[in-house]
Parts: sequence; C-alpha cells; structure tokens
Amino acid sequence: MRIGIYGLGRFGFFWAGLLAKAGHDVCGYGRHAKTVPEGVRLVDEDELLSQDVIFFCVTISAFADVLRSVAPRLRPGTVVMDTCSVKLHPAKVMQECLPAGVYSIATHPMFGPDSGRNGVQGLPLVICGVNCPDEIVDHWSEEFSGWGLSVLHMSCDQHDREAAWSQGVTHFVGRTLDELHLKPTQLATLGYTRLMSIVEQTCNDPLQLFYDLQRYNPYAPQMRMELKQALEKVMTTLASQDADTEFLR
Amino acid sequence: MRIGIYGLGRFGFFWAGLLAKAGHDVCGYGRHAKTVPEGVRLVDEDELLSQDVIFFCVTISAFADVLRSVAPRLRPGTVVMDTCSVKLHPAKVMQECLPAGVYSIATHPMFGPDSGRNGVQGLPLVICGVNCPDEIVDHWSEEFSGWGLSVLHMSCDQHDREAAWSQGVTHFVGRTLDELHLKPTQLATLGYTRLMSIVEQTCNDPLQLFYDLQRYNPYAPQMRMELKQALEKVMTTLASQDADTEFLR
Repeated sequence: MRIGIYGLGRFGFFWAGLLAKAGHDVCGYGRHAKTVPEGVRLVDEDELLSQDVIFFCVTISAFADVLRSVAPRLRPGTVVMDTCSVKLHPAKVMQECLPAGVYSIATHPMFGPDSGRNGVQGLPLVICGVNCPDEIVDHWSEEFSGWGLSVLHMSCDQHDREAAWSQGVTHFVGRTLDELHLKPTQLATLGYTRLMSIVEQTCNDPLQLFYDLQRYNPYAPQMRMELKQALEKVMTTLASQDADTEFLR
Repeated sequence: MRIGIYGLGRFGFFWAGLLAKAGHDVCGYGRHAKTVPEGVRLVDEDELLSQDVIFFCVTISAFADVLRSVAPRLRPGTVVMDTCSVKLHPAKVMQECLPAGVYSIATHPMFGPDSGRNGVQGLPLVICGVNCPDEIVDHWSEEFSGWGLSVLHMSCDQHDREAAWSQGVTHFVGRTLDELHLKPTQLATLGYTRLMSIVEQTCNDPLQLFYDLQRYNPYAPQMRMELKQALEKVMTTLASQDADTEFLR
C-alpha cells in the first residue's frame, strides 16, 4: 500500500513523518515543498494522485478548491482522507466532489508538531467514514490505535459541536490574550504560567488555522457569542460590586 | 519569637501550617475557626494580638476594618504583616492605622493550598517593608528563602502593576470561562486540558478573592478594558474574514 501526503505545511510534514516512521511507503507533494521528513519521497502532483491512499493536509479554506481540482484525476479504489480541524465541511466536500468508486474517510488528528513533539501516545484522533466500506475504516482505526493514539469514532456533527467548545474556545482565548502582549514575570503564579503556555501554543499554529477553525465550524459563532456574553456578565458583576462598596473607599 | 495568624480561612490555615512546619511557635485565631493545622494552637483574639509577629490572613476587603479594630490593642515592637493579593491598598491601611512603634511589612505569598499542595519550593513571595527596620525585613526574607521560596523585593506599586497583568488576567479569564460551564471531552487537546485546569484552579479560590483582586488593584480596570477590547478586535477580524470569503460558501 502506497501512501501519499497532499500538502507539506507544518502539519503535513509532521504527519508524513509519522506514517513513514510507522513503516509505510510514503511520498509527499506540496506546491512549494522543498524538503520532506526522513523516509518520505518528494513527488510531483500526478505521482501523488496515483497513490492508493491519499491524506489531504491542506488548510481548511483551501480544501474544497484543491479537492475539486484533483478529483477527476483520482483512480477508482483510491482512499481519500482529510485531516482538517473541522469535520462537517470537508465531509460534505468529499461527498460532493469525489468520483464514484473513490472512498473517503474524515479524520482529525487532534495534535500537531508541538503537542506531539514528545510522541503521540494517548493523543486523540477522530475518525468517521464518509463514503467507505467499514473494513477500510476499521483497518485505519486499528493502524492509528497501533500508534498508541486514542481513536474516537463519532459523527462529523458531534465532532464539530464538541470541538467548538474545546479546541475552538482554547484558540479563541489564546489569540485574544496574544493581543495583550503578556510578558513573563517573576510574579508568575502557576495559573499564569499555564495561561502563557496556551497563548504560545495556539499562536504557534498558523493564523489561517485559527480563522478556518472559527469560520468553518458551524458551532463556533455560538461559542464566541456566549464567551463574549460571559465576559460582559463578569464585568457587570464587578461593576455592581464596586457600587456596593463605594462607601468603604 | 511567637507568631500569630489572624484569620484561618483557606489561606490562613495553609499559611499557619507552613510556619509551624518550619519549626515556629504558632497560634491562630479566626472568628469561626474550630480547627487548626497540626502544631498550631487555637487562641482567642486577645491572645493572638499579644504575639510578637502577626500575619493577617483576612480577605482584602475586610483588611481595613479588621486592622482598625485591633490596632489600639497592639503592643509597640509587634511586627504586622499582611498577606493580601494586592499590595498598595493594605500598605496604605497599615501606614494609616498602626500605632507608633508597631512595625509593618507588606507580603504576598503568590500561592495557596492548591498550587502549593506538593510543596512551595520555587514559588514566588513578594515582600516590601512599609514601616519597618531593614534588619527585620531581611530576617523574614531569609526565613522565606530558607523554605525554598523565590523571594522578590519590589515596591507595592510594581507588584500591583505586574499582578494585574498576570494573576489578575488569569483569574478574570478563569471566572469568565467558568460561566461557560465547559465540560471535559474525549476531544480535549493539550491546550484545552490546560485551560480547564486554569478554570478549576482559579474558581477553587473564594469568589471574594476574585472580586477583591479586581477591585482593590488600581491597575485591574485598565487590564479588563484592554482584555475586552482584544476580544472585540479578534471578533471584528473574524467578521471581516467572513465577509471576504462569502463567495466561497
């Protein structure tokens, strides 16, 4: 089984390396890619599209355009997997664009080169067959479980709902705090040190990922609205406390 | 040297225990206190106020009232230390209320029963003499350094400025996120797990501490305003991105 990685950005590079390390025959293609991880061959787009299994590691917002442009060149029997951080959108795109006989599985490896720096053992990966025989989905579930990943089977809708309220809220808080240009201080409490590490980690991901996470997850606008309301509620409570104790000053 | 702890709430109880463990003769008093840590004697208010060194571990908002009510009963030569999470306010209160001959030092042990659960080694403690001979301040600096604490000498103004932008922002974010009732999820990324632990830790502190941190730190309102503006800026940027890509949908 020959595996291709379409897109060798920060995540695609990392993902190609993991598959090669797991002993697979892996090649990669990226528009601007000049280097590949150890054990991965750099190929042109046509060769990439002739592989048995193709993981797309492109930005969420580019996925529809990329898939539409390559779909006519995919052979029947090819297994296509996306690795986007939202799932309803790419699943819909795969369902609509892929020719008959090309299989599709939606996946979300919920880690990257930072969180997986010291190994991916125990980290979560969501998998959901879109248009694919069960035995192929099961095969890949077992493969990922074999790496020590925590493989989660759930619908694309459940993924997006839960991710908006976990990964989505984390990235939103991280990007908001980044605007404050918080600095390390000798006064750092344990909580502040953790907060700084969240800012650092979320802002180390490409800005485009943040935008896409927020824009292509249908549950994100509701999360952002509730977060804003929560902030305003805490502000209001503080203001009323101030009024209550004015006489103490 | 006999040491008294005035106030046996969550922090006072913890602090009394640390001093006793360090080998001191420690007694404690609290209006509603029924238990004390091992090695600490529970005494009445009058006996507490006769100790050589008195740490006040009352809420920030109660500090002025408490100090005013007990000040006339303090003997000359007594060393009074507050342990509040803001410093300008209690320092001013000590300067104004304490009788001549009673010494005062402002301190902020920047940890508590949660963050110090596994020992206080390396955790920060801010100290600033208010009205006290240098040798007494130095004596206590050395005592705290001897526990492995990172003892920081700084002005009360510098403390409040830096704390608003570290501890203050952390507690504000923790309380805001608490309003969202975030739940553990199998999809938890490393960042989300850290975010949850910040919520848990900040909300485990008494709500009154949160209010007081925000109300009695003169730099907190500016921090909150900038945090709100940052959130609105990120929201606006996302909205404009949405408009830009409407045609892609």
